[in-house]
Amino acid sequence: MKFDQEGNVTTFEKKKTELCQELSLQARDLRFQHSTSLTARNNCIIIRMESLKAIVTPEHLSVLDFRGLGLERWLVLDLAPQLASHTHSLPFEFRALEAILQHKVNTLQARLNDVEPSILDTLESLVDPKILSADRSKLHILLQNSKSLSELETDVKVFKDSLLKILDEDEIIEELCLTKWTDPRVFEESSLGIDHAEEMELLLENYYMQAEELGNKARELRGLIDDSESVIFINLDSHRNVMMRLNLQLTMGSFSLTLFGLIGVAFGMNLTSSFEEDPRVFWLVTGFMFLGSGMIWRRLLSFLGRHLEPSIPSLPSLPNITFLNDKTHVICNTRSVTNCHSSCL
Amino acid sequence: MKFDQEGNVTTFEKKKTELCQELSLQARDLRFQHSTSLTARNNCIIIRMESLKAIVTPEHLSVLDFRGLGLERWLVLDLAPQLASHTHSLPFEFRALEAILQHKVNTLQARLNDVEPSILDTLESLVDPKILSADRSKLHILLQNSKSLSELETDVKVFKDSLLKILDEDEIIEELCLTKWTDPRVFEESSLGIDHAEEMELLLENYYMQAEELGNKARELRGLIDDSESVIFINLDSHRNVMMRLNLQLTMGSFSLTLFGLIGVAFGMNLTSSFEEDPRVFWLVTGFMFLGSGMIWRRLLSFLGRHLEPSIPSLPSLPNITFLNDKTHVICNTRSVTNCHSSCL
Amino acid sequence: MKFDQEGNVTTFEKKKTELCQELSLQARDLRFQHSTSLTARNNCIIIRMESLKAIVTPEHLSVLDFRGLGLERWLVLDLAPQLASHTHSLPFEFRALEAILQHKVNTLQARLNDVEPSILDTLESLVDPKILSADRSKLHILLQNSKSLSELETDVKVFKDSLLKILDEDEIIEELCLTKWTDPRVFEESSLGIDHAEEMELLLENYYMQAEELGNKARELRGLIDDSESVIFINLDSHRNVMMRLNLQLTMGSFSLTLFGLIGVAFGMNLTSSFEEDPRVFWLVTGFMFLGSGMIWRRLLSFLGRHLEPSIPSLPSLPNITFLNDKTHVICNTRSVTNCHSSCL
Amino acid sequence: MKFDQEGNVTTFEKKKTELCQELSLQARDLRFQHSTSLTARNNCIIIRMESLKAIVTPEHLSVLDFRGLGLERWLVLDLAPQLASHTHSLPFEFRALEAILQHKVNTLQARLNDVEPSILDTLESLVDPKILSADRSKLHILLQNSKSLSELETDVKVFKDSLLKILDEDEIIEELCLTKWTDPRVFEESSLGIDHAEEMELLLENYYMQAEELGNKARELRGLIDDSESVIFINLDSHRNVMMRLNLQLTMGSFSLTLFGLIGVAFGMNLTSSFEEDPRVFWLVTGFMFLGSGMIWRRLLSFLGRHLEPSIPSLPSLPNITFLNDKTHVICNTRSVTNCHSSCL
Amino acid sequence: MKFDQEGNVTTFEKKKTELCQELSLQARDLRFQHSTSLTARNNCIIIRMESLKAIVTPEHLSVLDFRGLGLERWLVLDLAPQLASHTHSLPFEFRALEAILQHKVNTLQARLNDVEPSILDTLESLVDPKILSADRSKLHILLQNSKSLSELETDVKVFKDSLLKILDEDEIIEELCLTKWTDPRVFEESSLGIDHAEEMELLLENYYMQAEELGNKARELRGLIDDSESVIFINLDSHRNVMMRLNLQLTMGSFSLTLFGLIGVAFGMNLTSSFEEDPRVFWLVTGFMFLGSGMIWRRLLSFLGRHLEPSIPSLPSLPNITFLNDKTHVICNTRSVTNCHSSCL
Repeated sequence: MKFDQEGNVTTFEKKKTELCQELSLQARDLRFQHSTSLTARNNCIIIRMESLKAIVTPEHLSVLDFRGLGLERWLVLDLAPQLASHTHSLPFEFRALEAILQHKVNTLQARLNDVEPSILDTLESLVDPKILSADRSKLHILLQNSKSLSELETDVKVFKDSLLKILDEDEIIEELCLTKWTDPRVFEESSLGIDHAEEMELLLENYYMQAEELGNKARELRGLIDDSESVIFINLDSHRNVMMRLNLQLTMGSFSLTLFGLIGVAFGMNLTSSFEEDPRVFWLVTGFMFLGSGMIWRRLLSFLGRHLEPSIPSLPSLPNITFLNDKTHVICNTRSVTNCHSSCL
Repeated sequence: MKFDQEGNVTTFEKKKTELCQELSLQARDLRFQHSTSLTARNNCIIIRMESLKAIVTPEHLSVLDFRGLGLERWLVLDLAPQLASHTHSLPFEFRALEAILQHKVNTLQARLNDVEPSILDTLESLVDPKILSADRSKLHILLQNSKSLSELETDVKVFKDSLLKILDEDEIIEELCLTKWTDPRVFEESSLGIDHAEEMELLLENYYMQAEELGNKARELRGLIDDSESVIFINLDSHRNVMMRLNLQLTMGSFSLTLFGLIGVAFGMNLTSSFEEDPRVFWLVTGFMFLGSGMIWRRLLSFLGRHLEPSIPSLPSLPNITFLNDKTHVICNTRSVTNCHSSCL
Repeated sequence: MKFDQEGNVTTFEKKKTELCQELSLQARDLRFQHSTSLTARNNCIIIRMESLKAIVTPEHLSVLDFRGLGLERWLVLDLAPQLASHTHSLPFEFRALEAILQHKVNTLQARLNDVEPSILDTLESLVDPKILSADRSKLHILLQNSKSLSELETDVKVFKDSLLKILDEDEIIEELCLTKWTDPRVFEESSLGIDHAEEMELLLENYYMQAEELGNKARELRGLIDDSESVIFINLDSHRNVMMRLNLQLTMGSFSLTLFGLIGVAFGMNLTSSFEEDPRVFWLVTGFMFLGSGMIWRRLLSFLGRHLEPSIPSLPSLPNITFLNDKTHVICNTRSVTNCHSSCL
Repeated sequence: MKFDQEGNVTTFEKKKTELCQELSLQARDLRFQHSTSLTARNNCIIIRMESLKAIVTPEHLSVLDFRGLGLERWLVLDLAPQLASHTHSLPFEFRALEAILQHKVNTLQARLNDVEPSILDTLESLVDPKILSADRSKLHILLQNSKSLSELETDVKVFKDSLLKILDEDEIIEELCLTKWTDPRVFEESSLGIDHAEEMELLLENYYMQAEELGNKARELRGLIDDSESVIFINLDSHRNVMMRLNLQLTMGSFSLTLFGLIGVAFGMNLTSSFEEDPRVFWLVTGFMFLGSGMIWRRLLSFLGRHLEPSIPSLPSLPNITFLNDKTHVICNTRSVTNCHSSCL
Repeated sequence: MKFDQEGNVTTFEKKKTELCQELSLQARDLRFQHSTSLTARNNCIIIRMESLKAIVTPEHLSVLDFRGLGLERWLVLDLAPQLASHTHSLPFEFRALEAILQHKVNTLQARLNDVEPSILDTLESLVDPKILSADRSKLHILLQNSKSLSELETDVKVFKDSLLKILDEDEIIEELCLTKWTDPRVFEESSLGIDHAEEMELLLENYYMQAEELGNKARELRGLIDDSESVIFINLDSHRNVMMRLNLQLTMGSFSLTLFGLIGVAFGMNLTSSFEEDPRVFWLVTGFMFLGSGMIWRRLLSFLGRHLEPSIPSLPSLPNITFLNDKTHVICNTRSVTNCHSSCL
């Protein structure tokens, strides 16, 4: 345990019971059951802010169980000078309370500052419309940060609630002005024209509003995460639709090729077709296969175009089909196929 | 720093400490820790609205640190005349407060006006059912605007809260009526039949309601964004389903062609099938390949149609199949295939 | 401008300033800055309900700027008789206030009645499980209605808030009972056993509850839209899954056919395979191609069936394939294929 | 209309005006404008609970317009005995009020009991992970139930609000204790040690808490629906991903077969390749086609496996490719293809 | 039933009516209608916490209907010593109340501890980016836990509300201090410097805050579930997009192969093409088929790459196409095909 008098730092160890006797507190008051609490008891202010447990009396501030919590640095370097400075003409407990609340708000702010750029960066890279699939490691980071953010939100809320509970009851604020009750002489001296209770209210209100600002920022950040998730979904869906259309166009092409390739397969059969000897038929059939595939594909593509933009009154660009005589029966066939196709969709 | 007396503008520079002494304020009161605050101290009203910091006394209005913030134009052109005009018979601090609050509401309104058409335009074009994939640059704009909107919502909320805090406590309203306390003569003169505190309450309430309207508009806009996102998702999904059905129909066609193409491949093998010399067999098999593919495809398409609309009792349009004699065994085959196919799905 | 005395209608034009002087109001009171307001000033009730601006005095009701707003019909046909009727024994201002509030609630109700069937119809047709893709024009209608609905919700909320603000402060209710203050004789006469302020409170409360019911209905409608959107998404996703399974089954078929078609292609090569002269080999290979395809397809389908229902411990029903020598096996094969097809779906 | 005296049931018809005169109520009081209301007027309690309209006096309970609403059964069988029983030593109006509120809560509870198992069943079957596509009829049922649930939530909320409004104002509770005001003798007799107003408060509070429990259950149910919808979506998406992977694997197979089938097609051309006479070449090329397809497929599958599980450091199982000399140029080709493939992904 | 005096445990059975007479309670007070209630009646505190029903008097604590509820163990082992210990100098009812509330909070905490690791584990494994499809059994567990969590949230809320109702009314707190009213001697003795009501308030507040912490944890957990669901969806969508791109790339390959395979099919026809005798043509056409396929595929892949990353200004890596003379017409054809392809997308 440690003991801080107005500027001087003393460290010593004491049993809880001795401490209780010294300050005439009950053992129960030092149990620190809640993670965040701020109560006035018997001319002491007992504070717990997560890992920081402190007792403020009009003359000194005791910090309990401070080891191994990363607080030493702050205690030694920042707290002592802050307590020693006499910028306010206000008594000691105001300075102590301000230092502790400031430390709490700074901690919360630091946690938000930790989380915020990480979230913004991750979202920035996830929302990037160029990427096809979300980077999973980024998603993991986002999930971690989102969890930290909701823990931070809870802590800010708990901190705000504990301040609000005090602000709502004027008697508690009065009780917090220790000097007023213990040291009337100092009180009268220091309170020339200053109402201690009002000053205390202002001090607490100040930190309440700082916490509120933190809460607002956290809520905005959460809103941004939600919006970004929607945008990520729309992005992924859009990519998928584009790929699906490409896929569909290629499937159309493959279908056309397969359809007309069937002609080639037919002529490839070891069956007599009576055209075997005519040298021109080879080029005719080959040309027909390629041209027919291309044409059917074009029809299907334009059909797809019309289908996906149904509201534009579009003249279907009917290809001028002029065929040689000896293939008309096949044409009729394919035409009926596509007709039935379009009729049954 | 700048100094505005009832209509006349004076600019000069002063240290903060001098200012404090002059107005007998404490240094702490001029720290402007919160982005939006409105407090009465020692017959001064100290206001901060984001970048605008001002001190109102019964005789003059001082604007602090106004340079480089885009406020000069407003200060010179609008503020001076507004303060000089004597439309109300109310004292100076009312006019000053009204001018500053009006400026704040105007700023918020301007931000909403900035964001609103951009959001509406972006949504309009994103919701367009004709487009297959969402334009990513539009999504980016939407995300930016959505972020601006939530910042605006926070600012409106903070502004409303700071006004509400004053409206809830009658003493603060009383304190804001500076003339009442400093200049009883002017007070009595001006307050013929007018209760200053009530007028102040009306003034603040007026701006509170304007902020509330802004908040309502922003919330509606957010609701519209959410609804539009749902519609965008339904649109994209619908497109995908349509494309998938087309794809499925083509896959069915390809399957049919491949199935019957196998016959052609079989006859194309360099193996003796004893049909090689019959010239009619070529046409028979070719015709069977094309007809069979078409038929199977048609059956599959009608099957798909029934499958996707299961509740409509539809007579399956059985195709009139009239075949040549020597292929009946194959026909039976395919018929049983498709029958069992349709029965088992 | 228009002037309504107890039943008689008079229309005339007046400047705002004259009106102010006549009623000894301040110019500011007639600015009607907020879309919905209800205030008592100097024995007048000044009301604005969106487009309707009115001033109620104990003797008459003046409606301002009524032209071109679609209000004429209501003013002439409904308002005059309503004001003239003496069903209550209550003074004039009660009747006037009731008429205006009733008109407001009717307007809101009419807007809800406008929007509600349209939304229900659109949802009904969008939720229809038979449709494969959402009708985009319906989605557009839904979006429009959803926007109208949220505007309506805001208006109901604003109306409720302005009534609630009055109901919360008894002095304002007292002020609204104009006759009590201006005409003590009429007051005493009319108030035999009736407390004016209480009647006023009942009247306002009545409309507050009507507005609350409207708000409840609107919220239910919004909930219905959200639920329906979820159902639409599930529907579209289900359709997609069904189509994807069909697609996968056909892809399996195509794969099998391609795999065994490769045998045919191999034998189609202009390479000597030493089987060229054996007539039975043609039928053997052809049969093997079709049988093999069918079998592989069957295996794949049953694999798919097992894969999609992983929790059912299923013995893979290995088909006992025993074949005849010639062509009957093709029939059996395809038949068994389709059987297995039906069993595994 | 009907008339119930302490246990005896009398039915008769009366005009509204007669009823008003009899009970010295105003016509307005019997308009029953709101779906749920509970007011005390002139020593009567006027109650409307949806379809049930009743007037309670210290001596009797009148139920109005009870025909055709499914209430007869309850009125005759349950209400009369309940009113007649003297378990409480409390006056009649307590019993009447308790009977009516109990009936209301029972109705709400019955509606919840109706909806709850249906929702749970539907969700149970929709969440079933084995099903591939959501059953649309189930979705329809879910939508209907969800609508009923939100109506029920609104009714519970309205009921709670109307009770809460009474509980918040002690005067209304006093007014509801009719006997206290009308029958001081009975009052004094019955109130030995019992405070009527307190009893009334307890009675109302009791039903308020029952309504609250109903509201909690309804909210839990809504939460369950939301969670289940998420699970349904994840299920459908998972199924789709599994099918898509299968599809992709088969597409890989088809691609491999097509690639190496091209070799067969090439050798099938009626062009001289100088290999025509070598009998071993047939087996070499055929074997190469099948082996090559299989190998490429394997490579693609392992590539897919690596691609989908990128974080596992996996040694790519390089197939031992040992090729014959005269095909190396094709190998190089396919190798470069797959290289470029993997590089461009 | 059971009877616990200050440390000693007595079990006996009693009728409810006898109990009522003994404690001079009304039968109604022992109905325990609500799942959670805490009321003071006639110098008894009647408590129900779900399955635990207890009556506290200044001298003893009776637990009712305790059998078969899993409470025996707690009653015998923990409750008796807790009641017997005299750590507080506070009267018996404080110890009894503290024991029961502590038991309730412990039960809630135990339920949260049950649910929390299960949810975290399930989410951990579901969010894992490596898995392609969500494990459905895990989803089922998640759904169950989510249901337990919302039931827990409701219970915590009900518990908090019942404590808050007492904390809000000072008279109820006074009533809860039984000793103050029944045993003034003990009261005076024990209350040296201690205000009983204040102690009671502190005691209740302590448990209220513990319940609040539980509620906060549950809410964080729910938020985590929601966030994780979003991440799961993005993961599944990403996987799908990756697979779809692979599929598209393979479809492109298949298309290219089919396109150029058509040349092979054409040459495979039993038609005279005049090239039959030239041995070089075989290699030329075969090479052209493979090279052409590869090239077209490469073009399509680079087209896809450009399409999916539209914002990068990329020089399309035009492949140096140098063809032999006699195939240019086919090239033109395919080029026009791909041109039209790119133009119509």
